[in-house]
Amino acid sequence: MTGPVSASNVSASNVSASAVSAGTASARGASASRSLITPERLAEFFAPRSIALVGASDTSGWARFIVAASNAVGYSGPLHPVHPVHEKVFGRSAVPSLRDLPEAVDLAFILAPTEAVMAVIDDAAAAHIGNVVVLASGYREAGSRGRELEDSLVARATGHGIVLLGPNCLGFLNTAASVAPFALTVPLPLTRGPVGIGLQSGALSSALLAFARSQAIGVSTVASLGNEAMITTADVLDYFVADEHTKVICLFLEEIGDPAAFSAAAQRADQAGKPIVALKVGTSQAGQEAALAHTGAVAGDDAVADAVLRQLNIIRVHSIEELLTTAALLGYHPLPRGRRMGVLTASGGACDIIADRASEQGFEIPPFAPATTEAIAAHLPSFASARNPLDVTGYVLANARTSPLTAIDHALDAALADPGLDFVLFTGFTIPETRPPDERLAALLESRIDWLARRVRTAPIPAIPMSLTCVDVGAYSRQLLGAHDVHLLSGMELGVRALGNALRWQDGRGRVRLLPSWHRRADSSLSGSGGPAAVIWSEQRARQLLAGAGVPVVPGRLARSADEAVEAASAVGRPVAVKISSDRISHKSDVGGVALNLSSDEEIRSAYERVTAAGSHAGDDSGSVLVTAMRTGGVEVLAGVSVDPGFGPVLAVGLGGVFVEVLRDVSLRVLPVDPDEVGRMLGELRGLPLLTGGRGSVPADLRSLAKVISDIGEAAASVPGLRACEVNPLWVRGDQVEALDVLVVTQPHADDEYPPNGTEPGR
Amino acid sequence: MTGPVSASNVSASNVSASAVSAGTASARGASASRSLITPERLAEFFAPRSIALVGASDTSGWARFIVAASNAVGYSGPLHPVHPVHEKVFGRSAVPSLRDLPEAVDLAFILAPTEAVMAVIDDAAAAHIGNVVVLASGYREAGSRGRELEDSLVARATGHGIVLLGPNCLGFLNTAASVAPFALTVPLPLTRGPVGIGLQSGALSSALLAFARSQAIGVSTVASLGNEAMITTADVLDYFVADEHTKVICLFLEEIGDPAAFSAAAQRADQAGKPIVALKVGTSQAGQEAALAHTGAVAGDDAVADAVLRQLNIIRVHSIEELLTTAALLGYHPLPRGRRMGVLTASGGACDIIADRASEQGFEIPPFAPATTEAIAAHLPSFASARNPLDVTGYVLANARTSPLTAIDHALDAALADPGLDFVLFTGFTIPETRPPDERLAALLESRIDWLARRVRTAPIPAIPMSLTCVDVGAYSRQLLGAHDVHLLSGMELGVRALGNALRWQDGRGRVRLLPSWHRRADSSLSGSGGPAAVIWSEQRARQLLAGAGVPVVPGRLARSADEAVEAASAVGRPVAVKISSDRISHKSDVGGVALNLSSDEEIRSAYERVTAAGSHAGDDSGSVLVTAMRTGGVEVLAGVSVDPGFGPVLAVGLGGVFVEVLRDVSLRVLPVDPDEVGRMLGELRGLPLLTGGRGSVPADLRSLAKVISDIGEAAASVPGLRACEVNPLWVRGDQVEALDVLVVTQPHADDEYPPNGTEPGR
Repeated sequence: MTGPVSASNVSASNVSASAVSAGTASARGASASRSLITPERLAEFFAPRSIALVGASDTSGWARFIVAASNAVGYSGPLHPVHPVHEKVFGRSAVPSLRDLPEAVDLAFILAPTEAVMAVIDDAAAAHIGNVVVLASGYREAGSRGRELEDSLVARATGHGIVLLGPNCLGFLNTAASVAPFALTVPLPLTRGPVGIGLQSGALSSALLAFARSQAIGVSTVASLGNEAMITTADVLDYFVADEHTKVICLFLEEIGDPAAFSAAAQRADQAGKPIVALKVGTSQAGQEAALAHTGAVAGDDAVADAVLRQLNIIRVHSIEELLTTAALLGYHPLPRGRRMGVLTASGGACDIIADRASEQGFEIPPFAPATTEAIAAHLPSFASARNPLDVTGYVLANARTSPLTAIDHALDAALADPGLDFVLFTGFTIPETRPPDERLAALLESRIDWLARRVRTAPIPAIPMSLTCVDVGAYSRQLLGAHDVHLLSGMELGVRALGNALRWQDGRGRVRLLPSWHRRADSSLSGSGGPAAVIWSEQRARQLLAGAGVPVVPGRLARSADEAVEAASAVGRPVAVKISSDRISHKSDVGGVALNLSSDEEIRSAYERVTAAGSHAGDDSGSVLVTAMRTGGVEVLAGVSVDPGFGPVLAVGLGGVFVEVLRDVSLRVLPVDPDEVGRMLGELRGLPLLTGGRGSVPADLRSLAKVISDIGEAAASVPGLRACEVNPLWVRGDQVEALDVLVVTQPHADDEYPPNGTEPGR
Repeated sequence: MTGPVSASNVSASNVSASAVSAGTASARGASASRSLITPERLAEFFAPRSIALVGASDTSGWARFIVAASNAVGYSGPLHPVHPVHEKVFGRSAVPSLRDLPEAVDLAFILAPTEAVMAVIDDAAAAHIGNVVVLASGYREAGSRGRELEDSLVARATGHGIVLLGPNCLGFLNTAASVAPFALTVPLPLTRGPVGIGLQSGALSSALLAFARSQAIGVSTVASLGNEAMITTADVLDYFVADEHTKVICLFLEEIGDPAAFSAAAQRADQAGKPIVALKVGTSQAGQEAALAHTGAVAGDDAVADAVLRQLNIIRVHSIEELLTTAALLGYHPLPRGRRMGVLTASGGACDIIADRASEQGFEIPPFAPATTEAIAAHLPSFASARNPLDVTGYVLANARTSPLTAIDHALDAALADPGLDFVLFTGFTIPETRPPDERLAALLESRIDWLARRVRTAPIPAIPMSLTCVDVGAYSRQLLGAHDVHLLSGMELGVRALGNALRWQDGRGRVRLLPSWHRRADSSLSGSGGPAAVIWSEQRARQLLAGAGVPVVPGRLARSADEAVEAASAVGRPVAVKISSDRISHKSDVGGVALNLSSDEEIRSAYERVTAAGSHAGDDSGSVLVTAMRTGGVEVLAGVSVDPGFGPVLAVGLGGVFVEVLRDVSLRVLPVDPDEVGRMLGELRGLPLLTGGRGSVPADLRSLAKVISDIGEAAASVPGLRACEVNPLWVRGDQVEALDVLVVTQPHADDEYPPNGTEPGR
């Protein structure tokens, strides 16, 4: 047994290091405003048939962008300028106020400055307008005065029954409804398609749309969420789940504001089979600070956010390119049933690269079945080998064609019938920039593409075409592929990574559980000096907590004299450890309050004296020690629960010793978790081989271990005012699992006490 | 002290697992052919002024590609078709043989089939043609008969004084010389520029050129190397080092054929300040098999190849996109002097993403100096904060312009003068697809770009423009930026990664050392049954080897009786270890031949009996044991030398225990290394904190440790027929370093004995 690792070892680096964030409006208990936001209302909100632009003038870039975006999506409804001074805007007649509109509109896009917004909301109500977008900044992101302003805005809108997107947002576009109250440049052509996008940083949508355009990735709705004062990320998830045009959801996240609502929406998306792909920023301190500065969002501890996304089966990506390539794969292609991949290329180098990247993503590239090999070989030059991954070599491309089909096409036909493959990834959908001027060549090419597209649509296993590098889809390709609704993956690196992402999403389906409601506090911190003091439980009390929850605890007895200690040792079995059991001292080892490996009466007596003296020196005169049995020959695990200011109790699991202390090899989950989830946590540890019998250890029964850890999590989460609960070490040998040392710290009556009262998860 | 880890622990997983490769022609001692290849000859080879196409016909796709590529680069010299049958090819008069050419040509591109090539070589010689490209396959990559054919081809060419590129290659293009005997599609427009490209898989060059085109990255020479029968990768490196048009070198590598020549060329490139960026495949077993199948190349142990690239200061990348983005950065931009980065964008989300990616690459984003903040704030809306990373917000873009300069431009001016920054990364070089039809707008835009381009050229610190995502550079951008010789980094992910790569290259300059000559054997393997048997040294002999090289070895004495063992223990200091010292048993622990931590005479006597009995049981009746002092309280390191079939002796350094056994946390280098290099190896270990005082250990004196490890490497490499030398553990405590257990295995007179006779590194 090693000395106990203090809770701060884990929590400082992994669990609760984040600052405490400002609350989001949705979490401030604005239940009146929440009740306005129903799925029907959201569907209506994102598909207005008439729009007023309040504050639009000829010199406003925002207004110009909205007009251009509306043209880009083919918006044919009315777009009424409203301006207190100008009579004409963009050649259209303007009215001074929403109250003066000639007809009712579905949505008012408010471009007016911050100080004018409240009056415009009143005007909207008077004009019976139920939906507004607020572009102005200067709210929550601008500090406490801004936060008050935002609260008032929400209250006013709610009072009028108005649903509001923003403030500090750029609006949205909806290709299916052909509407775009969207104050940003839209790169053209904009393609309709299966990808819905929600962004917590609206200006970034230009970049996403530029990449989508370049790869001919079609979008359904793009929404800039701004400060989420009323419509939140969770609401937009719900909108996408309900939206028939959206098959896959992309998010750009700076924070996850309301874990309960977010997890409920993620669960609904998972149930609906609509994958969520998220580019969540804040992996670095610098990124967290940047997010704080730009939108007032507190990214929180990124390791916890990462665990949350994993729990919610949300695919986390790290670039715009990976976000959209993954979404396109999920939106346009059927998913493989497994990881056995056929690969067809016209370049040996491409085979090498794909094999390397595929291996990283956990794909297999098994040999072709004999029949496949034979069928492919018939179309290859004699020197080429018909193996998987396949290089048809350039010879075939280079020789004059007698048929529209190339060697890759024949190989595709053969590979799609191979019983040993789950899917085929193929290159060779190569289309020139422009239609060949030679009509015969053009016809040959087009009949080939038509054949390929039909093959892709009707293949018994997924046939996924990929380009070799991430370059724009040319105009002619866009036209030909678009006509066949075929999508090319964007180059080998992104393409294979997207495939790995998609398969992981598939593996994770059906396991999304709701996260508890947990409200961030705005102005205090866990370690703040103002709150009530933290309470350290005596180890005996902590052991009782766990034992009561069914967690096996190493035999131990309290002793109040050297004689009692000797007696206790005989009762629990020697050798023993003698430890301070005090509700004042959390770091027993640091003060000399732990003696290990004691066998003889003498050793035990002397240890009793030493340990109680140390305890007395550290402020505990009780003379009471805990005598516990020693365990050897197993593996030591750490299981700790800390409390994250954003997400509540977080379970950390790692291996003892250097794994946690030097390598920070820890897996995290927000509680609650079940034993299966703990099993997956153990599977993420780099030190896993130690548990499975590496270095000659007895293989641990991972199911037993996972059950015990899950019980520890449950016990910890049930403690009112929990701050930390740490079992270190949790000893495991085969199917024996025992908590050897337990620490519990609480801080009852703090603002963010857990479990919270009267809030229910999700809605 | 833990039990010794057997050499196979390290070697099996890290050092020498690769199969033994086929030899390259250059390594087969073809010194006659080598002497033909001089820098002058290579310069001539890659810039022919007249070309014959042997085997060209109207139906040959290869010939069509060459004609198209020649047109693409503006080739204006003669292109003579040579065909035994056809009289006209592509409307040009053909001659039946090279002997019938109307004029001498500089280069013959041989498209003829494999069986005809030898005769064409003779024809070329008769026609006084000194340079040929051979496209045909069926040589080395096709097995042993092909290898013989290739040897004959090289001998024939050499005999004629002919220099040959290929076989099994697609030729080359040279934009500066406007010549392209290159049998592949060239995506247009092809831009001249600073990037030289050499590929071991020619067909992949289409993909590289497509990405280069899309990002407006200019190339100098692109060479498909094929089987490297005469012109090798090292030769092409030398060509690029000498070529004034090439500033940066891109390689696609399946293998590193001749470490000595390759390292010498890499050293010359480093000295010339021309970075080498390499996409080396074979990181996975699947990738290695793919490479083997497609070109006959054996990728070898990827971990060793990775170490080699690091030692040679070659930037290793993992995608075509990263390869070319890194090359473009190095080719077009001045390099920063340090890692303090200013960031300017018009999107908070972009700031977040850049901050995260920059942090991964080790960049700092420090606060602006007060003067910078003040200057920037003057051009921002009041609600925006003038901080680094900077989001100028969309407001400025959205409002009608009175000056060509935007807020980003003003911020750029200010940031470039900030004394706390080493470089500025900025977005906002946004140019529409086509020239604006409004002439006033177009003029404003063009004057802004002109201003920005001048600013980039004249900035006191590097000002590096970047696009937000990896999309094609449009036609108008290409024209405007091309006219100013400005290059945009390809999106945030690739851009920041390229910056990290470039800075690491800069950090590594001046440290490239030659690798020893080490010739692969074609038909045997290290563990092959045919060769001489391996010899296990007794530990005492192994200790003497190290001690003789100045390596501190823990005190130890041989003992041939229990009494001698007790005496030895007193001499070396108790507690002691008693171990078999046999030249027959390498895995002492496994046979029970090690007893640790012995203090009393009794313990030592009993250990002597146990250990000698175990030795006797394992086949050693000498009755001789080694008694060594025990060491405690330090950190245990492993230093092992194994022999890689491709690169010769390889040093592995790791921390003892789980770090090597469970985590495979090992750093590798091909020998020789100096202590500084070993210091960098230690710095790569995840377990480094244990050496620097983590977990309460005494901080190790890393300089002393590195010196000892370097000496171990030198001692091992000096052993004729070395197979393995492993010090495990190497004990370190502060500045005390001692080898506690040493194993040496040799196999003298094997084919690939090291050090090799009479070969000199490089040339």
